[in-house]
This record gives sequence, C-alpha cells and structure tokens, in this order.
Amino acid sequence: MVRIDWKEKKNLTMLTDFYELTMSNGYFEHGLKDTIAYFDMFFRKVPDGGGFAIMAGVEQLIEYLKNLRFTPEDIEYLRSKKMFSEEFLKYLENFKFECDVWAIPEGTPIFPNEPIVTVVGPVIQAQFVETMVLLTINHQSLIATKANRIVRAAQGRPVMEFGSRRAQSYDGAVLGARAAYIGGCVGTACTIAERDFGVPAVGTMAHSWVQMFPSEVEAFRAYARTYPDKCVLLVDTYNVLKSGVPNAIKVFKEEIVPRGYRPQGIRIDSGDIAYLSKKARQMLDEAGFKDCKIIASSSLDEYIIRDLLQQGAAVDAFGVGEKLITSSSDPVFGGVYKLVAVQQNGRIIPKIKISENVEKITNPGFKQVYRLYDRETGKAIADVITLHDEVIDDTQPYEIFDPIHTWKRKTVTNFFARKLLVKIFDKGKCIYKSPDIHSIRKYCQEQVNTLWPEVLRFENPHNYYVDLSKPLWNLKQELLNKYGNI
Amino acid sequence: MVRIDWKEKKNLTMLTDFYELTMSNGYFEHGLKDTIAYFDMFFRKVPDGGGFAIMAGVEQLIEYLKNLRFTPEDIEYLRSKKMFSEEFLKYLENFKFECDVWAIPEGTPIFPNEPIVTVVGPVIQAQFVETMVLLTINHQSLIATKANRIVRAAQGRPVMEFGSRRAQSYDGAVLGARAAYIGGCVGTACTIAERDFGVPAVGTMAHSWVQMFPSEVEAFRAYARTYPDKCVLLVDTYNVLKSGVPNAIKVFKEEIVPRGYRPQGIRIDSGDIAYLSKKARQMLDEAGFKDCKIIASSSLDEYIIRDLLQQGAAVDAFGVGEKLITSSSDPVFGGVYKLVAVQQNGRIIPKIKISENVEKITNPGFKQVYRLYDRETGKAIADVITLHDEVIDDTQPYEIFDPIHTWKRKTVTNFFARKLLVKIFDKGKCIYKSPDIHSIRKYCQEQVNTLWPEVLRFENPHNYYVDLSKPLWNLKQELLNKYGNI
Repeated sequence: MVRIDWKEKKNLTMLTDFYELTMSNGYFEHGLKDTIAYFDMFFRKVPDGGGFAIMAGVEQLIEYLKNLRFTPEDIEYLRSKKMFSEEFLKYLENFKFECDVWAIPEGTPIFPNEPIVTVVGPVIQAQFVETMVLLTINHQSLIATKANRIVRAAQGRPVMEFGSRRAQSYDGAVLGARAAYIGGCVGTACTIAERDFGVPAVGTMAHSWVQMFPSEVEAFRAYARTYPDKCVLLVDTYNVLKSGVPNAIKVFKEEIVPRGYRPQGIRIDSGDIAYLSKKARQMLDEAGFKDCKIIASSSLDEYIIRDLLQQGAAVDAFGVGEKLITSSSDPVFGGVYKLVAVQQNGRIIPKIKISENVEKITNPGFKQVYRLYDRETGKAIADVITLHDEVIDDTQPYEIFDPIHTWKRKTVTNFFARKLLVKIFDKGKCIYKSPDIHSIRKYCQEQVNTLWPEVLRFENPHNYYVDLSKPLWNLKQELLNKYGNI
Repeated sequence: MVRIDWKEKKNLTMLTDFYELTMSNGYFEHGLKDTIAYFDMFFRKVPDGGGFAIMAGVEQLIEYLKNLRFTPEDIEYLRSKKMFSEEFLKYLENFKFECDVWAIPEGTPIFPNEPIVTVVGPVIQAQFVETMVLLTINHQSLIATKANRIVRAAQGRPVMEFGSRRAQSYDGAVLGARAAYIGGCVGTACTIAERDFGVPAVGTMAHSWVQMFPSEVEAFRAYARTYPDKCVLLVDTYNVLKSGVPNAIKVFKEEIVPRGYRPQGIRIDSGDIAYLSKKARQMLDEAGFKDCKIIASSSLDEYIIRDLLQQGAAVDAFGVGEKLITSSSDPVFGGVYKLVAVQQNGRIIPKIKISENVEKITNPGFKQVYRLYDRETGKAIADVITLHDEVIDDTQPYEIFDPIHTWKRKTVTNFFARKLLVKIFDKGKCIYKSPDIHSIRKYCQEQVNTLWPEVLRFENPHNYYVDLSKPLWNLKQELLNKYGNI
C-alpha cells in the first residue's frame, strides 16, 4: 500500500481573500447569515483562444470543503485584527459547512458562460468558499486544458509532463502533474505525483550524469549496466550526431543486446529537433535499432510539436516542461464566482449583474446545464443552460436558439440530453465519490472525442453553442428590462 | 501568539524529478556516491526583459533541506518501481543531508549567469535536491521580481497583491503573496499569508455584498455601520459616477462623519480607470473628502499602471491580481542547476558544459560572487564572479573587464566589495537564520536603490556588468580550449 500524503492536505480554511471575512462578519451583523444565496462559478474565455476547456480540480475542492473548519489559532488570529465581533468569531468557532454544491465532473469539456460549480447555502458560507473554489478549479482546469492541446498536437504520440522545476510552487507542480494526466499526458517526472495520485512517474538521466563520468561512452555504459531493460540515453551533452548517437549505438550493442534486452530510446533535449531526430532515426535504423524510440524535450508546446511533425521530425514521444506546467502562453484561467439568486420567504429571487460591457452580464437564477448529443454520430450538438428544475425531454424535438441573435434557431431531433452539473454536497455532506484518476483521464478522452474537429482547432475554432433555454432567456430579459437602465 | 502553520510544511522529499532517483541509484551502484560534486543554480534571462531579478525563496529552501528524509512509505513506493537496488534503498532509509549550501540572501537584486545557489556535497545528495532548489527559488524569485516592477511603476503609491483566486494552486497563492511582499507590495488579500508569514492582509467587499442588499446605498450603509473606522466602498457594481460615488458620499456623510471617523476610500474595479478616477476625485473633493483615497483594481500590471499615471489618473493605491500572482506576461523564471566541479583525490576538478549555443556555456568551478559598490554614490558598479577563495581587496584599485569583449576594461577605485553568496548549510547543518519578512522587504528596497536608473528601466535596460575575475576567466578559457572542439 502506498501512503496517500499529498491528499492529506492541511486545513486550507484560511486560504481565503480577507474580504470574504469582512463580508461574512457584516452579513452576520446585519442578520443575513441564514439567508440562502446561490453562487455560480463560470469562465468567460478559453485560454489560448481554444474552443473548449477541460474541467479539473473537483477532487481537491471536495477535500477542501470536507475539511472546512476554523482552529482556535485561526480565531485568535482573526480576533487580533480587531475587526470582527465576538458573536461572529463564536459562529466561526462552531462553523459547519451546510451548503449544497454541484459541479461538472473532472475531465468534461466545458465552455464559456455555463456554470461549472454552483454553491447554494447560507450566504456567509457560500460567499466564504469563493477564493478556494476559484483557486482550485482555475488552476487545474488551466493545466488540464493546456495538456489536452499539447496531447492533441502530438497526434497519438505519448506526451510526458516534465515541468516541476519551473512550476509556480509545490502544489503547482504536484496538482499540475495530476491535471496534466487528466488532460491526456501519459506520465510525469514528478515522483510525488505518482506516490500520491497514481500518475505514472518517469525519468532517466540529466546532463550532469554524463558529465560525472570521464567520457560520454562510459556514462552511457554505466547507465546501461544499471538499467539494461529500461535504457534511455540522453544524447545531446556534447554533440548529438557526432558523439551522442554513435556512443548510444555502441553501448546498445555492447551492453543491452548481449544481456537479452532491446534499447528503449534516446532523448534529445536541445538543438534542431526536426533535423537531429531524422538523422538519429537513420543512424539507429542502420544499426538495427528500428524499435528504439526517439524522445524530444526542448521548450516544447502544442505549436512547436505541430511544426515538428509537419517537418517530418522522427519523434516518438515528447517531454514537455515549463510551457505546460505554467500554461505559459496564457497562464490564467479566468473563472469568476457570482451571486445569481437569493432566497426570500422560501422563493428564489434571481439576481443579475449588469455591466456596461455586455459580455460581463451574468445569467441569473438557479441553473442546470444540459449537453445534447446526436444519437447517430455521438457528437455533442450544443449545451443548453436551463433553470435548475427544468427538464429537457429528449424523446421530443427540441428547439435551440442563439441567445443574442435569437432568429438563429435549430430544431434538434434524435438526440439525448445529459445533465452536466452533478450534486456533490447535500447540506454540507459529501455525496459524491471522485472516480480514480485513470477513469477521469479516459472519460476526458472520450468526451473530447464527442466534439467536432472544428471545435478542436487550436486557432479560430468553431464556437460551440452554449444556449439558454426559453424559460431562462425570458427570465434574463425580464431582469435586463427591469435593471438594465440603472 | 499566532500559530505558524504554512511553515510546518509537509515533507517534500519526494517532490523530485524521477531522474534524480534513477541517477542516484546509478551513482550508488557505480561507487560514486561519496564523490563530492559542486552544483550551481543560475538563470540566463530576466523575466519581462528587465534589468535584474529579485532573489526569493531561501527560507522555504532551508525548510526543505532541513526536512529531507525518506519515510518507510517512500521506500516502499520506490521498491514497487523495481528499478532500485536494496542497498540503495537502505542508503535512502538512512539518508542524512550532508551538503554545504551557499545562497544569495532573499531580497537581493540578482543578474543572469551568476551563481545564486551553490550546493557542494556527495553527488547523490547534491544532485537529488535539484528539482526543489529550482522549483523553490524559481517561483518566488519570479513573483518578487514582477512585484518589484509593479511597485516601481506605482511611484510610491501602495500596491496590494489580490491574486489568490487566479494563482497556480495553493502554494502559488500563499508563497506568491510572501514573494510579492518581499518585492515591495504593502499587503495581500490572502489571509493565510498574514497568519503564517506576517504579510499584512487587507480586504473589504465584493460586488456580491452590494447585490445582497435591496439597493447599493443600503449595502454601503450596512458596511459603514459595521466598519465605520475602516470604510472602503466598492463603487462599480452598477455605475461608478451616477450611482457608486454619489451613494458613497451620501453614506460617508450620514454614517461615517457623524461617528467621528473619516472615510478611508473607494475602490473602482472596472471601466476606464483614468477617466473614472479623475471624475470621482472631483466629486469626493467637492463633498469635502479630499482625504478619501481612490483604489483601483482591474487587470493591472506595471504597464497599465504606468499608463494610468501618465494620463493623470487620480489613483492613490493599486490592487493587482492575476498579472502579478502568475507573472502572466512572462510566467517562467528559467533557473537551471548545473554541475560545475567534482572533487578527485582532494582536488577540485572544474567541469564545463559546452554548447553550440554560446550563451549556454557554463562558468566552471567552485565560485563566489562579489558586488562592487561605489563608496561615494553607494551605487552598485558591477558583480564579479570569482573562484570561491579569491579575495577582492577593495583597498586597492581593481580592474574589471567584459568576459566576451575583453578589451572593454575599467579600473574601479574608491569602492567596497561585498560577497553575495552566504553559507547557509555546513555539512548538512543549517547555520543561517532567515531575517524576518519585513527586514527582507526593507533590504530589498535598499538594494534596488543601489542600482542606477538605467538598470531599473522596464524596457531595454542597461546591461549591468557581471564579469569574471581574471583567474576564473583564465580557467574557463583553458577548459574551452581543451573541450571546445569535441
């Protein structure tokens, strides 16, 4: 049994924006603490201009919510700020999470403006968790989304996550490796991500290994003797074609084959990968090592991998570092958390946030998201955001329409509808079990395959439909007419 | 007493690239485990094209090194990989860190190509810590450097770090807030960063507070009554000039002044900050609230802040979120960790990594870094990388020269020389106490002030001199002549 350690996360209750506390104290003082509020997390823009994102981080969000509690030290710290009433601190001391929470399962393709997490409960609680809901889902969805782009660029060739040393701190490395695996990577260099999350860990040697021996061939020989069945040699310490590959071939012949094994691969970590890989392939083939893989790992991302393959690079697998683990070309997943309704006298009063920037106007009310799939092709047709209790009857034709250009209409037939938001907490109790990470990864691949190729494009993808149901659209119009001119 | 919790970091020993372990096992098998190796961490490029970076993360590096040990569960996990010898696993079970470590203190301006961390010890150990040395220093130096740019753009106006929700996971938020404070921010929204690191936490209200009440004025009134002495109101939920500022003024007059307080500020979180702030300033002034601060917080970074101030924006303080906490315009600090020497028979054998890319050629040998300051102006003149035991006698004139264009020479007089690399571990024992965070922040400001304005420019800064001493330059030439043509 492998000990699960990174999962035994410390209590992150105090990892919260300070204003969540000042507001909570204010709600408490103004008699609003038991008012039921509805908050949605959603995002407005897919990173890198992509057509969709990948949901990730739900498992860690669950752990956080399960462990929500204020320690005596937290209370003492808060008291020292001299901003909070003793009654409020007492309330925090006895804090017990009581909200209902819905989330879209990890690995699901998600789209702008649809709720991906909904929290319903006493306003103090539902407000308080904002920072961690966003932090958790934003980070892992960012990395899962980037990983999925890179994996798709590699067209079936394995992609390994190699970025720990350039990650934005420890959780960035470890949970980033987890998210990258969900997005489709086959493994990681991050050892602890295997021990704690089951992400396969891989690794062979650095240039320093080669430098530690009197010569490259002696370094290779030593490695081959230690790992005859798993021999991958790093061939670019001195000169790939003049030294690295010839020495590797020599050692494969002298140390690997006689022991009854086959060489596993060579790795090129610098230089002109397209050119070097083709030449190295030729040399390996001529030496009788057609089965020896070539692995490339040099500042790669989806664009460089696409270019390499277009140039016919003879690369069998990719190691991707900093550009994956930080999503460096677009390192922010901009999820937001907005109040969408409040209960009054047992009725749900929808709330809307008006903005001069029309893209920033929110979808009001307590909602659900349906994904409609074509029964014939299995492809996803559209997402429809509905009121929470609305039912889309997929035995009948269903009309969808563009929420802005409402004359754009389409009647969908022969489809099935799937609710995306799954209830994960009921009155503070977790009622959902995260699938194991391999199942999440598999589910992600399957769901990405339900998207049309036009949605999968890296640049200028087709805008997948995210429509509003007629009742939700009507509700929004009503509120816009009522409050739009303030 | 506030409990220190984030500092009680879990054991991060297994947060390591898997190849550190395969190499270690190999060194062990080939009788190299006690060979003393010298590794340098350095970086090649300042993020955002800046003139210098800020060193940060040493305190966390120390904690990591102090806690290095393999648990029985770690050993069990490694055994399950079926790649490591039992003797090696035994060695890990009894692992005790024995290296000497030098680091440049946190808050120091640092420059490309100079060693900022040096680790000397048994090769298995000195190699093994690579991932965490890089991960720790890369992340915090990235954020401290970015924060310092943003703080300088604000020209003395306070900058607060507001980015937790968009950080790259939990440590990214918390240690990012720490690094941002070192770089010059005055506070953070991240509560736990105050509880655990003493970074002042600040915060008031979100738009949801305003939405929770029947009207904006009622929301402001409620807040003012709860926090009459700390009243900062968010004025952009509906319309800054038509609603937010007039309502704020009304509430300041009705609720704050009669209680004997002064309003602290208003915050604008969207829209045309330059225009809105000037108009709001006028309205506040006319209402008799010249002392009421205007705080802006809307996708800011150093460039936008500079533009705002050039346009005469009436902003007194800035809240900076995602662009700071991820350093989004350049989210990777590219520190590397290279073998620079090996001991053989008690002698230090320098190692060099040759590359076709001349910028990637390393500086060989066991080294020290001196910073030369002008005694008259106090300004930093140049850094000189020397052999470790070399002494720069600052009572005598000292000739520095460009290591590439060696005819560019300058004799420095009336200067004092300061060693930058400080020994923090002696044979595995920590011999250094991190200064408190406020002292680090103050030292950082003082040291940044020793740089000429030309080095401080955001774009095309003057290249600060990082030269090699004559003995080090000679050593490097010798090795280049010997190995450069392989």
